[in-house]
Amino acid sequence: MPSNAFYAQSGGVSAVINASACGVIETARKHASRIGRVYAGRDGIIGALTEDLIDTSAEDRSAIAALRHTPGGAFGSCRYKLKGLEENRAQYERLIEVFRAHDIRFFFYNGGGDSMDTANKVSQIGERLGFPLVCVGIPKTVDNDLSVTDNCPGFGSVAKYIAVSIREAGLDVLSMARTSTKVFVLEVMGRHAGWIAASAGLAGKKPHEPPHIILFPEITFDEAAFQARVKECVERYGYCVIAVSEGVRNPDGKFLAEAGTRDAFGHAQLGGVGQVVAEMIRRAHGYKFHWALADYLQRSARHIASKVDAEQAYAVGKAAVQLAVAGENAVMPTIERVSQKPYRWRVGSAKLADVANREKKLPGSYITADGFGITPACRRYLEPLIQGEAYPPYEGGLPKYVQLRNKAVRKKLGTRFAL
Amino acid sequence: MPSNAFYAQSGGVSAVINASACGVIETARKHASRIGRVYAGRDGIIGALTEDLIDTSAEDRSAIAALRHTPGGAFGSCRYKLKGLEENRAQYERLIEVFRAHDIRFFFYNGGGDSMDTANKVSQIGERLGFPLVCVGIPKTVDNDLSVTDNCPGFGSVAKYIAVSIREAGLDVLSMARTSTKVFVLEVMGRHAGWIAASAGLAGKKPHEPPHIILFPEITFDEAAFQARVKECVERYGYCVIAVSEGVRNPDGKFLAEAGTRDAFGHAQLGGVGQVVAEMIRRAHGYKFHWALADYLQRSARHIASKVDAEQAYAVGKAAVQLAVAGENAVMPTIERVSQKPYRWRVGSAKLADVANREKKLPGSYITADGFGITPACRRYLEPLIQGEAYPPYEGGLPKYVQLRNKAVRKKLGTRFAL
Repeated sequence: MPSNAFYAQSGGVSAVINASACGVIETARKHASRIGRVYAGRDGIIGALTEDLIDTSAEDRSAIAALRHTPGGAFGSCRYKLKGLEENRAQYERLIEVFRAHDIRFFFYNGGGDSMDTANKVSQIGERLGFPLVCVGIPKTVDNDLSVTDNCPGFGSVAKYIAVSIREAGLDVLSMARTSTKVFVLEVMGRHAGWIAASAGLAGKKPHEPPHIILFPEITFDEAAFQARVKECVERYGYCVIAVSEGVRNPDGKFLAEAGTRDAFGHAQLGGVGQVVAEMIRRAHGYKFHWALADYLQRSARHIASKVDAEQAYAVGKAAVQLAVAGENAVMPTIERVSQKPYRWRVGSAKLADVANREKKLPGSYITADGFGITPACRRYLEPLIQGEAYPPYEGGLPKYVQLRNKAVRKKLGTRFAL
Repeated sequence: MPSNAFYAQSGGVSAVINASACGVIETARKHASRIGRVYAGRDGIIGALTEDLIDTSAEDRSAIAALRHTPGGAFGSCRYKLKGLEENRAQYERLIEVFRAHDIRFFFYNGGGDSMDTANKVSQIGERLGFPLVCVGIPKTVDNDLSVTDNCPGFGSVAKYIAVSIREAGLDVLSMARTSTKVFVLEVMGRHAGWIAASAGLAGKKPHEPPHIILFPEITFDEAAFQARVKECVERYGYCVIAVSEGVRNPDGKFLAEAGTRDAFGHAQLGGVGQVVAEMIRRAHGYKFHWALADYLQRSARHIASKVDAEQAYAVGKAAVQLAVAGENAVMPTIERVSQKPYRWRVGSAKLADVANREKKLPGSYITADGFGITPACRRYLEPLIQGEAYPPYEGGLPKYVQLRNKAVRKKLGTRFAL
C-alpha cells in the first residue's frame, strides 16, 4: 500500500523553487505504488504544524507542469525555524502526529541550510517516536551558501538577473556620463556570502567594462581604497558602476547599511547600503549618482531565469523522490560538476548532517587581490550557472504564471497547535 | 550630389533608442543618392557643438543591425538643452557652422519634448542664416509624455518591465506574507506624468492581484486614505503590493520623497519615495516591508523589451529619413493607433511646433475614482504597447549587445566652442 508524502517550501522563495516542487510532484505521480498523494504544507512547515495541508492531487497535469516556469512559492513558504529537539520537542511531536494522521511517510523539505537541519531532526524524531519517515532535503537558496553541493538551485537565476542588469544599466550610464550620472550603484542580496555580488562580475571581462567595483561581504570595507578606485574609474573610463552586497561591513564589524552616513547636521541617515555608498561618493568627489535596489525583483525574475538553474531545480526535486523511494533517508540531492568545458553536471547526494548549518562563503581565491573584483577562477565557476534562457510562456505581453487551486485536505485531528 | 545627415540622441536613453538609430542609418543607406554619410553626435548635440562627429559609415552592416537590440545610447546622449534663440544665438550659429563645414543638410534629433523644440529652432535658424536644413525630430521618451503621438517609443518597454516585475515580485510576497514581508513597494520613474506608474496596473486584473495600490504624480497624496487602503489589503488579501511614482506630491505641492519622514528623534530621513512610503506604513501599522528601486534598470532592460515598442522605435527612425528625403521639414513621425483589437498602428507625422514643450499627463479618465488604480480605458490604451517579446541574442548566458567603434570624423574647423 502506498503512503503519502509531505512537501514544504521553506524560507525566502526563488524564481525556480516551484520547478523543484514540479519535479517532486511529477516524479511522485510516477511512483504511485509507493507514494499515494503529495500533500504540500500551506505556508511551509506551518502547514504541517497546523494540519493545513494542500492536496496537490487536485491539480491537473498542466497546472503542475506550469510550476516549472512560475516564480515564488506556489504553496506558500515561511520563515519559521523549528527549535532544537530538546528545546521544543512538542513541535516535532506535532509533526509526527499530523504525519501519522495523514499516513505521511515521506517528508520533502525544500530550503536552505536551516531547513536541511530541520529535515535531519525530523528524521531522527520519527525514528524515536516509532513512526519512521523518509526525510529528504531539497536544496534551495538564492545565496548559494549551501555546503557539499557544487551550487544551489535558485542562485543561477539571480546571478543571471544581476549580471544582465549590470550590463544593461552600464550601457545606460556610459551613454549619459559626460553630462549626467557618473556613478551607478546596484545593491544586491547576500548578507553573509558574496556569491550574488560576485555574479555582477560576469557582466564585464575587461577593466573598462562594468562593474568596475564589487563590494563583497567577505571583504572589510576600506573607504580610502574604495574612493580612490571610484575616482580612478571616473577619470579613466568616464563613469563607475558598482555592485554592492547588502552584507558589506565596516572595520568595526557593523553593516555599512546600519552604520549609515551623517548629514550636514550630524544626523544619521538610514537607507540601503547602495544609498550609503552612493552618498559617500558624492560627498568625496561630488559625482552625480544613481542607485538601484533590486530587492525581491532579483529573486523572483523568472522571466530571465537561467536555463541551467531551472533544470537543476527540477532535477533535485525529481531526485529527491527517487532517493526517497529507494529508501535513502536523511539525505539531500546535490549538484555535482562533472566537467567545466563543456559544462556538465549530474545529481549526487549528501547526508543532511553534512549539509546542515554550514555556510559556504566565497573563497578568497575568487576575489581579486584588491578586493574589488572576481578572479578568473570565480568566473569559471559562475559562468556555467547562468547559461541558457528558460523563457516562460507569455499571454497579453505578460508571463503566464500559474496560480494553483491549493485545495485543503480535510483535517483528521481535532486539535489545534499554537505556533 | 548627396549631402550628409546628422543624428543625435538626446536626454535620458532607453532600451530602444538605438533601434531608432538603426532605423535612421539603415534607411539613409538606402537613399544614397540623397544622403551621403550619417554623422552621429558624440554625446548628443554636444558632439555637434564641439565638432565631435562620429562616422557611422565606418560601422559594418551587422554592427548597425545589432543596434536594434542594444539598450543605452550607442553614440552617447546628453542632458544639454539649447537656450532660446535670442538668448544664445551663438549656440545655433555654431551648429550651422559645423553643419556647413561637413555638408550636413539633414538634422535628426532623437529625444523628448525639449529636443523637439530644439529641432524646431534649428530649422528656423538654418533658414535665417541661409543654410536651409531639413530638421526631423524622432520621438523618444520612457515617460510617454509627448503630445500628438499616440504613444512614445521607449515607454512600452519600461511599461512591460514594470508590469512583469510587479507580477513576479507579487508572487514572491504572496508566498511569504504570512510570516514575513506583508508590504512591498516598487518605486518607478515618472516625475510629472504617471504613465509608468499606470503600467504597473497591467500586472493584475482582479482586486486581489497586485498591484493593490498605485500612487500617481497626478493625484495629490492623501495619507489617511492610503493607510486605510493598505490596511484593508493586508487584512483582506494578506499582503499589499504598491507601485509609487517618484513624482508623487503632498498636499503642499512638495515631492513626497523630498518631504521625507522623521525618525524617532525628529530627524529628517532622506531616501527615495518608495522608502518614504514603506516607512510610513511600518509606522502606522507595523507591517514588515520591503521596497525596491528599479531606477536605470527599468529603462535599460532590453532583455524584456516590448516587441511593439522595439518595432515602433525602428519605424520612427526609418520614417524620419523618409520624411526628410521627401522634403518634409520641422516634423516628427508619430505613432497612430489605427485599431484597438487587434491592435494596429501606423506611422504618421506632426509639426514639431505642435509637439514641442507640451507635456501629456495621464488623463483623469485613466485613474480610478479612489485614485489608486487604473481604469479599463487605461488598460485598453496600455495593453497593446507591451505586446510581444523581442529577445536579444545571447552569448555565454548574457545578452550580446554591440559596442560601436564610434570613429571620429576629421575636424574641418580649427575653432573650439565653449559649452
